[in-house]
Amino acid sequence: MAGPIITLTTDFGATDGFVGVLKGVILGINPSATIVDITHEVPPQNIQAGAFTFGTAHRYFPADTIHVVVVDPGVGTSRRPILVIGPQACYVAPDNGVLSYLFPEAKAPAAPVDAFTPIHVSLPEGWRAYHLMNSHYWHHPVSSTFHGRDVFAPVAAHLSNGVAPVNMGDPVKTVAAFVIPTPVLDAGVLLGCVLHTDRYGNIITNVTTEDLPLIPNAQVTVRIGGRKIDGLATSYQDADLVALIGSHGYLEVAARNGNAAKLLGVSTGGEVTVTVG
Amino acid sequence: MAGPIITLTTDFGATDGFVGVLKGVILGINPSATIVDITHEVPPQNIQAGAFTFGTAHRYFPADTIHVVVVDPGVGTSRRPILVIGPQACYVAPDNGVLSYLFPEAKAPAAPVDAFTPIHVSLPEGWRAYHLMNSHYWHHPVSSTFHGRDVFAPVAAHLSNGVAPVNMGDPVKTVAAFVIPTPVLDAGVLLGCVLHTDRYGNIITNVTTEDLPLIPNAQVTVRIGGRKIDGLATSYQDADLVALIGSHGYLEVAARNGNAAKLLGVSTGGEVTVTVG
Amino acid sequence: MAGPIITLTTDFGATDGFVGVLKGVILGINPSATIVDITHEVPPQNIQAGAFTFGTAHRYFPADTIHVVVVDPGVGTSRRPILVIGPQACYVAPDNGVLSYLFPEAKAPAAPVDAFTPIHVSLPEGWRAYHLMNSHYWHHPVSSTFHGRDVFAPVAAHLSNGVAPVNMGDPVKTVAAFVIPTPVLDAGVLLGCVLHTDRYGNIITNVTTEDLPLIPNAQVTVRIGGRKIDGLATSYQDADLVALIGSHGYLEVAARNGNAAKLLGVSTGGEVTVTVG
Repeated sequence: MAGPIITLTTDFGATDGFVGVLKGVILGINPSATIVDITHEVPPQNIQAGAFTFGTAHRYFPADTIHVVVVDPGVGTSRRPILVIGPQACYVAPDNGVLSYLFPEAKAPAAPVDAFTPIHVSLPEGWRAYHLMNSHYWHHPVSSTFHGRDVFAPVAAHLSNGVAPVNMGDPVKTVAAFVIPTPVLDAGVLLGCVLHTDRYGNIITNVTTEDLPLIPNAQVTVRIGGRKIDGLATSYQDADLVALIGSHGYLEVAARNGNAAKLLGVSTGGEVTVTVG
Repeated sequence: MAGPIITLTTDFGATDGFVGVLKGVILGINPSATIVDITHEVPPQNIQAGAFTFGTAHRYFPADTIHVVVVDPGVGTSRRPILVIGPQACYVAPDNGVLSYLFPEAKAPAAPVDAFTPIHVSLPEGWRAYHLMNSHYWHHPVSSTFHGRDVFAPVAAHLSNGVAPVNMGDPVKTVAAFVIPTPVLDAGVLLGCVLHTDRYGNIITNVTTEDLPLIPNAQVTVRIGGRKIDGLATSYQDADLVALIGSHGYLEVAARNGNAAKLLGVSTGGEVTVTVG
Repeated sequence: MAGPIITLTTDFGATDGFVGVLKGVILGINPSATIVDITHEVPPQNIQAGAFTFGTAHRYFPADTIHVVVVDPGVGTSRRPILVIGPQACYVAPDNGVLSYLFPEAKAPAAPVDAFTPIHVSLPEGWRAYHLMNSHYWHHPVSSTFHGRDVFAPVAAHLSNGVAPVNMGDPVKTVAAFVIPTPVLDAGVLLGCVLHTDRYGNIITNVTTEDLPLIPNAQVTVRIGGRKIDGLATSYQDADLVALIGSHGYLEVAARNGNAAKLLGVSTGGEVTVTVG
């Protein structure tokens, strides 16, 4: 009988013992938890990067997974620790926007320069959230600098033992998010931006399948980093530089057996334009 | 009751959520699988490096382990996804040579310059292989760029649930490999090459115990990177620069408390010679 | 029913298959072990760094955890492999000081220049230790360069199966350690040193809560790297450069949304002074 799944997404890195400590705390509370790392290599204190990576990964876990997401530069300040309950899973995190990709309301057309503005969003229909306030379910003594260990991990472990969310604190109606930019259509040109560059140097933009015709080699022209790419490919091997719909459903630009982000000098927030026909 | 073991060897890295996604998909199909990472830090798209690392690690796992090996620059092209069944374990991978070290037929004397040529090998006696074609056991929708998530991981998970390999696709008789060079003996001199440099900078060559007398301080002389090392040591502390038989059974060159690969300016494919007596 | 917990702390890194091999060996002996990584990114052969990281992490694991700690530059030399049994947990490691933080006797006032001297310490009351000598519980053939795989991991796995520690080898009374420096008080000034710099660039010193008044903004002045910091903060956001009591109970210096170690040019062994009042 497999235990409940708890995932971890953090900026703790692999060099210190932070991640091991979280797992020790969780296993001390629920020895049968199945703990899965999503990543611990979010760039330090980069909430947007953590939000993107978690946003592309969480949906592949089974129902009732408990997700712990800790990129938390404001630990020890007034930012709230929260628990969010959705129809498929629950989420334990600081209330600082790291869960933004869960909320459709956070998506809005925005030119690159206006993207990622801090906002507050209402919870979608059928969702609930709680401000974590009940220290009975925390690890003691509670430090002011490591709530991953002292608040988020123990709360997740107690939830996995069946403690009801309502015991964790007071309900809240809105949560912090940032604007996740969607492409802006201007005079027949889609103006988008780069959401992420991955391990391979693939450039992931905010242009999605819904914005584009899906036929390979359609009359799509992508312009990015001073380069022009005609048509959509279906594999990374189709040309030296390709544009294709990646596995996340976003338009990607990739270099065959190379690193497109380095090649084009492009990073998160960079501009991409797409014309069709 | 422990679940079946599924190992993962990839070039996905730790910075994106790729590895977490694979685990989510596997646990969604078989919640009691025990998933073990071999490495995710194969240099991007480096099939040879992935093959070597997997080749030195897989034999230490218990019988009936399911190994998933994904270094897959050709994802979405005509390269086949395959399942290989050996007497001890089974292997799910792209058919691109990443499993080469499993097949004795791939080993052949080769000077460094001729090494790693693409070939095809017949399966050893008692082995079977299948071309993964039955999309019933895949994750949908199937992307053209992330078969780790959509083909290899779900197939491994279904195998771990007891689905018979024959259901996965059509049998195949040969698999892709590359020539794994073995030393060439020329006028009393063994000419070998570097297979890998590890985390410590230890230089691992293709010269094995079978090529050498095993007596420490035997009249063995190793020449590499412009340096000459007399005799075989038994520990990394025996001299500033040592040659010894490493834990993989290969001749290694190491620097005491240092990094031999950097010190000697040697990398994979580099030349080593050994004289005896 | 969850299996026994075995933690791993090593300098093996993530790029080779070393860690996967350890897990394969452990699961071959005890398929129901729960294996948890503390870190594998101890800088190569850096015993002090490994000791610190393990020293800050082990206490967060449940009772009866088996800890494997392998930073072992002397593998294959006369340094002993040992098993240490404490009241809460047991520890399998080379006898080279990597367990120093377990032993209060190793802590002594020392100026930075005298710190980390090799010594031997007696085991605390109620503790036992054994020299691992019984090769019946090892992995064969035993290499001279990878005792993690061949000695430490299999011994931990057999312990997790209930084999009694006394079967592993002869009892020993003292173990190797190094002097863990505690601050020196001189003319009203605490002279301490840097124990570690973490992933975020936070500078962790050997000054503890017991050395300092805990009231925030008390009349504490910290001097490090040519900078002067007045008062203790409670969060990393309180000022551009803060001194605070970190989650390990040590005085830390951190830069808001930045990397204090780089900013101040400070590394392990560096000097810090604290004046109060």
